[in-house]
Amino acid sequence: EVEATVVSVEASATDAGQQHHEPKEQRMYGRYTQELGVYAKEEAARLRDGGVRDGGGLRRNTSVRSRAADLLEYEKDPCAKCQMCASRCQKFLISRVGEDWIFLILLGLLMALVSWVMDYAIAFCQEAQKWMYGGLDSNMLLQYIAWVTYPVVLITFSAGFTQILAPQAVGSGIPEMKTILRGVVLKEYLTFKTFVAKVIGLTCALGSGMPLGKEGPFVHVASLCAALLSKFMAALFGGTYMNELRNTEMLSAACAVGVGCCFAAPIGGVLFSIEVTSTFFAVRNYWRGFFAATFSAFIFRVLAVWNQEEETITALFKTRFRLDFPFDLQELPAFAILGIACGFGGALFVYLNRLIVECMRKQKTINKFLLRKRLVYPALVTLLVSTLTFPPGFGQFMAGQLTQHESLVALFDNRTWCRQGVAEEFDYISHSHAWKHPQVNVFITLILFIIMKFWMSAVATTMPVPCGAFMPVFLIGAAFGRLVGEIMAAMFPDGIHADGSVYPIVPGGYAVVGAAALSGAVTHTVSTAVIVFELTGQISHILPVMIAVILANAVAQSLQPSLYDSIIRIKKLPYLPELGMGHHEKYNIRVEDIMVRDVRFITLTSSYRDLQEVLLTGQLKTLALVESRDSMILLGSIERSQLQSLLSHQLGRQRRLEHLRQLAQDNGTHDHLPSLATDSTPSSPCISTEESSSFSPAVSNVQLPLKSALKTVSAISDTETPNTEWEEQQLDMPVDFKNCKIDPAPFQLVERTSLHKTHTIFSLLGLDHAYVTSTGRLVGVVSLKEVRMCIDLAVVSAY
Amino acid sequence: EVEATVVSVEASATDAGQQHHEPKEQRMYGRYTQELGVYAKEEAARLRDGGVRDGGGLRRNTSVRSRAADLLEYEKDPCAKCQMCASRCQKFLISRVGEDWIFLILLGLLMALVSWVMDYAIAFCQEAQKWMYGGLDSNMLLQYIAWVTYPVVLITFSAGFTQILAPQAVGSGIPEMKTILRGVVLKEYLTFKTFVAKVIGLTCALGSGMPLGKEGPFVHVASLCAALLSKFMAALFGGTYMNELRNTEMLSAACAVGVGCCFAAPIGGVLFSIEVTSTFFAVRNYWRGFFAATFSAFIFRVLAVWNQEEETITALFKTRFRLDFPFDLQELPAFAILGIACGFGGALFVYLNRLIVECMRKQKTINKFLLRKRLVYPALVTLLVSTLTFPPGFGQFMAGQLTQHESLVALFDNRTWCRQGVAEEFDYISHSHAWKHPQVNVFITLILFIIMKFWMSAVATTMPVPCGAFMPVFLIGAAFGRLVGEIMAAMFPDGIHADGSVYPIVPGGYAVVGAAALSGAVTHTVSTAVIVFELTGQISHILPVMIAVILANAVAQSLQPSLYDSIIRIKKLPYLPELGMGHHEKYNIRVEDIMVRDVRFITLTSSYRDLQEVLLTGQLKTLALVESRDSMILLGSIERSQLQSLLSHQLGRQRRLEHLRQLAQDNGTHDHLPSLATDSTPSSPCISTEESSSFSPAVSNVQLPLKSALKTVSAISDTETPNTEWEEQQLDMPVDFKNCKIDPAPFQLVERTSLHKTHTIFSLLGLDHAYVTSTGRLVGVVSLKEVRMCIDLAVVSAY
Repeated sequence: EVEATVVSVEASATDAGQQHHEPKEQRMYGRYTQELGVYAKEEAARLRDGGVRDGGGLRRNTSVRSRAADLLEYEKDPCAKCQMCASRCQKFLISRVGEDWIFLILLGLLMALVSWVMDYAIAFCQEAQKWMYGGLDSNMLLQYIAWVTYPVVLITFSAGFTQILAPQAVGSGIPEMKTILRGVVLKEYLTFKTFVAKVIGLTCALGSGMPLGKEGPFVHVASLCAALLSKFMAALFGGTYMNELRNTEMLSAACAVGVGCCFAAPIGGVLFSIEVTSTFFAVRNYWRGFFAATFSAFIFRVLAVWNQEEETITALFKTRFRLDFPFDLQELPAFAILGIACGFGGALFVYLNRLIVECMRKQKTINKFLLRKRLVYPALVTLLVSTLTFPPGFGQFMAGQLTQHESLVALFDNRTWCRQGVAEEFDYISHSHAWKHPQVNVFITLILFIIMKFWMSAVATTMPVPCGAFMPVFLIGAAFGRLVGEIMAAMFPDGIHADGSVYPIVPGGYAVVGAAALSGAVTHTVSTAVIVFELTGQISHILPVMIAVILANAVAQSLQPSLYDSIIRIKKLPYLPELGMGHHEKYNIRVEDIMVRDVRFITLTSSYRDLQEVLLTGQLKTLALVESRDSMILLGSIERSQLQSLLSHQLGRQRRLEHLRQLAQDNGTHDHLPSLATDSTPSSPCISTEESSSFSPAVSNVQLPLKSALKTVSAISDTETPNTEWEEQQLDMPVDFKNCKIDPAPFQLVERTSLHKTHTIFSLLGLDHAYVTSTGRLVGVVSLKEVRMCIDLAVVSAY
Repeated sequence: EVEATVVSVEASATDAGQQHHEPKEQRMYGRYTQELGVYAKEEAARLRDGGVRDGGGLRRNTSVRSRAADLLEYEKDPCAKCQMCASRCQKFLISRVGEDWIFLILLGLLMALVSWVMDYAIAFCQEAQKWMYGGLDSNMLLQYIAWVTYPVVLITFSAGFTQILAPQAVGSGIPEMKTILRGVVLKEYLTFKTFVAKVIGLTCALGSGMPLGKEGPFVHVASLCAALLSKFMAALFGGTYMNELRNTEMLSAACAVGVGCCFAAPIGGVLFSIEVTSTFFAVRNYWRGFFAATFSAFIFRVLAVWNQEEETITALFKTRFRLDFPFDLQELPAFAILGIACGFGGALFVYLNRLIVECMRKQKTINKFLLRKRLVYPALVTLLVSTLTFPPGFGQFMAGQLTQHESLVALFDNRTWCRQGVAEEFDYISHSHAWKHPQVNVFITLILFIIMKFWMSAVATTMPVPCGAFMPVFLIGAAFGRLVGEIMAAMFPDGIHADGSVYPIVPGGYAVVGAAALSGAVTHTVSTAVIVFELTGQISHILPVMIAVILANAVAQSLQPSLYDSIIRIKKLPYLPELGMGHHEKYNIRVEDIMVRDVRFITLTSSYRDLQEVLLTGQLKTLALVESRDSMILLGSIERSQLQSLLSHQLGRQRRLEHLRQLAQDNGTHDHLPSLATDSTPSSPCISTEESSSFSPAVSNVQLPLKSALKTVSAISDTETPNTEWEEQQLDMPVDFKNCKIDPAPFQLVERTSLHKTHTIFSLLGLDHAYVTSTGRLVGVVSLKEVRMCIDLAVVSAY
């Protein structure tokens, strides 16, 4: 019976760890905080020093280590203030830099291969669609069916596949990475299943030709790759690859690799990933991202050369604007207006995207229907979008036959499209002819393209497939820029420049500016400027691009959160939002206004009964240790799991057996007892409780192990001697804190600390909670939840 | 007599605040940590709540505020853990974003103007030299005298001028900015005098044509500009411009502006300044730097357009490499080798620079001579350098007649110089002919140029004038790259590419790569890559540049510290050095090994006598407050100044008068006492002591005010009643901590915290010191000094 209970404890722990629908609120408290090797060493030293002989701590650690690869670890560092280590020291505790290089090279290589193969597969899919569509040009209906069926099948497959294999693979993954790098473990987002689902789902989704992007998911894929690679290296070599801190550090490099190898833009990739995922950035990690992203981008482009696609390494969307006079000074107001308009457009996009999601959630009938038939929504959306882009139908007015790549190449073209002006000899080569309808002006085509793509992209990115929104937004921005550029070219056919020489306006330059500005506005980043330089291989428009991006950001940031923050809020991920700019008067709040005054604590003189009571009623991860109920002087904090093991040790099998033996010695009956005493199998309740308690944070219901432990204990009591009297005695004894790890300096604030400062401290150190003290006396506790709620309220009311 | 003492206290405080030669060790403890407005508000609330009637705190604050503009402030925030605010929250506590924009625009505008005017003046100086040299071509000797005298006069003037006006203006200023942004106040580096000295000194130094750079000093000039601008705005508008935290935040934007408007490279400027000055970077400040740097770069280039120098806004050193096939894949190994060589070169440069400084310091006779005749060294160096570059002399073999700008334009030329290969029709237009000596091969010229410039730059940057090393190093790198490129072009006259079409090698591309790699190696940055793209206006060589820069960094970082860190070490600035990469085994040190065990503390039951004793013996800025001598439980920390005012209040005039009145009442003699009691002029000893105690950290000898206070007190005792008995009584009373600001949560570590973690925590939070506790018991204290010494030892032994 004892064995059975133990097994059930473990089973439930594993089960709960794999549950995806557990409340997020609870999941946020589980974090990777400890390098196991260091921990084991320190624990060993501690045991040696303390003279503790049983080696329980060590044994527990090694047993934990063997399971570490699969289960969420939660081990608190004995060092004070170490919560910050979770998010900061991670970037620091590297023992062997050489291994870093190898890891980064492998990661870059792998990601470049994945990116290239995926691009190849996507191009193949799109070719197949074109071939089908082209082969059936005799019959319009058949052509339509072919044009529509193909993406519907691909998207439905993508949605179904990810739904079955790993629902976490849905969406871009940047919000989740942002949350993970904030220090919150979203374990199931970094599994092999998710990797497979993401890669295959993404390939199908992009192959369908829907307005979806590769960049966001690629950040996630790269992170997955890094996580799996370090697991693999750990299995092969052990040692530093087990270091969870180091892994998180590698994740931030991986984000850079993701963007870098997707656009062949190493610098932009690094900057974009920093802007999108970090709050405080450790400059000494800079080189890591740069190295990995550069290597990855290099391999990605080399593969294209080896495959004879390119003659040498060049930019992905190479432009050929003239170098000697890229733009006129007097064009700058037009660029500035373009930037401001893109700012409004970006905010609108984020708003539209959120509106669609919220609409569908609020409409209960739609919501119910969609929840039952998960594949209907993507199929319907795809049907709608592909019907509208059907080239012989409405698609002819919006360049519907072009893929994203082709459209972008055409939009960045250095020639002028409109018939006025010097570009009269415009020859419809390559993809540009798709933009020119015999009956309709090129301006109408562009406007239709922008409007249609705008809502299509906003809708398409809400589909439950792996997809990003960066590329569609980039494309819309390019089209909008092109439109402005063409209008300028039409207005000033000979260019603006006054002094003799004629420099016609380059509408392609406007397209570049527009692309950077709109994508910058949607993501709230300025590094899109760098990305366009690397994408186009030309930096001549640097000033217009920078001006437009900054203006677009200024407008968009004052109107809406970034797309990723918006998704974080929609998905209710455990992320601490930024304080909005300029809404500071909203935050005239102090810690005393939001802190929880009813703090659970233990005193130095607490009995085990108090301990039991506190553990059974509260849910907090750590408990405050105060000197006494009267003085309330905060001495430190103790982890829940530590207290659990203290309690279970006190009531545990060994002590119980000792007691029984004592009893037996007193009664003179020691015939059946030796067999029990030597029964120290690894499944003895004491050890199993300790094991499960160290897994506890992964378990959604943290109290489970304790309850089971108590159950186990009472099971023993039931089977052997009904000694509740002994138990009561034990519970009344004062707690012995000697073998208990106490964090002697938990993070403290005072009552008058402002919300500003609390926010900064929490995000800088990656804190979960902080105690509020007044001259050493504990008066309250404030946790991430309270801070988040408080800011959310303020931010929501601000928008 | 009382009046006189008070005045002397204030005078000595002001005097000491302006002393430049006080030991750096002490200066580092003074820091800007407090927004005065917030402090005053909180203090007012505190006084109201606490029912303290005399308003001493408030009065003191307003009196402090009126002097704040001139004197170093040190006010501890009452909020716990606020030390981090000094370096982090600064970037956060902004009340009005609109004012930020205005400030940044003004800063950008101002710096662009300064940069442009300075460039104009420098160009004028160099033209004047050329004109003089050219006009005297009949007589070689006169020509030589003109060529040599001109720079010697300029450099001597520059050295003398800065020496007299503001010796802090010497050097690049980046190391100092790094230290200031670390949170250590180097007050005298941000004065108007320094600004004038730096701008004029730099203009003269660069106008002399010596191998000196503008970029490093420009970071300093921009920071000076920002500091002065906020002082000016504060004087005009008051309010937020008084906020010292905000000013520091603006300083980091100013650094970006400095680089941005020097090279017209906004993105590179931002990244370079982040890499060079920050350890942890708050991403939410990103836009500030970008905005200001872009605006500044824009205005800088617009000025050039308005002045008819340029037709439109373009890059500073525009290149015209071909776009369709910038380089061959098979050239990459050459680029990689170039990068590695530059890495070694960069490390050698840093080593050489340090060697020269250290040599001159160690040679006592030289040292003594130089200290007495400060202008002899720069004059001698200038004479040597200009003699060697004299064009008809040795200069003809090393393109001596070209200025830095001209050399760089020539080196980045897209044509091949060597006669072999396709570039046979090489026409010696523009500045390229200087490289081609009729008797000597172009390779020899290049090699001589590199070798001569290398040591010349290393020597020249040690001169006591405002100057940077970035640009000379950049130039040497370009020349080295050019050399490699020319060699490649000579080896493969038809290019490497195998498939039919001939793409000759572009040696200019190698020059770009070499420039980025060498400057990256010397400064330990990767953002030099971005700077070259912005400088040349072409990004086509992105992959070679990135590869070379990363390799150069890898090599240089493993051999030597960066140039700026090297200067920090030479100047012994109070900066916490980075832990070297790969030397981690050296840091197997724990806090218990370095902490100071003999901590000065006060207990809750301390008497005023204990207080006096502690204050008179120790030098620490804050003192630990423990529960009792036995328990040693750390309750918080109290500032020295707080204790000083406690003590002086206890022994102060008011209490003394009360005592006298009491005495008089008892003795029935109250004829002369009312006049004393109403004598509450602002110069009463109590208030003056409080005032001077709040200035104390600016004073090099922190004990001064206390001693004076005691002196004042005894002065009163002497003049009035010799009541030493009363004094003794007062000293034996237990301290009343009621009105004393206690920081309830000073930063704590445990004994086993590793040096790694201590370093991270200190640099992340900008700490001065941290207490070491063991379950709440105070066991030691570790300050920045110990951490720095320990790391220095390890780093020095590693190199």
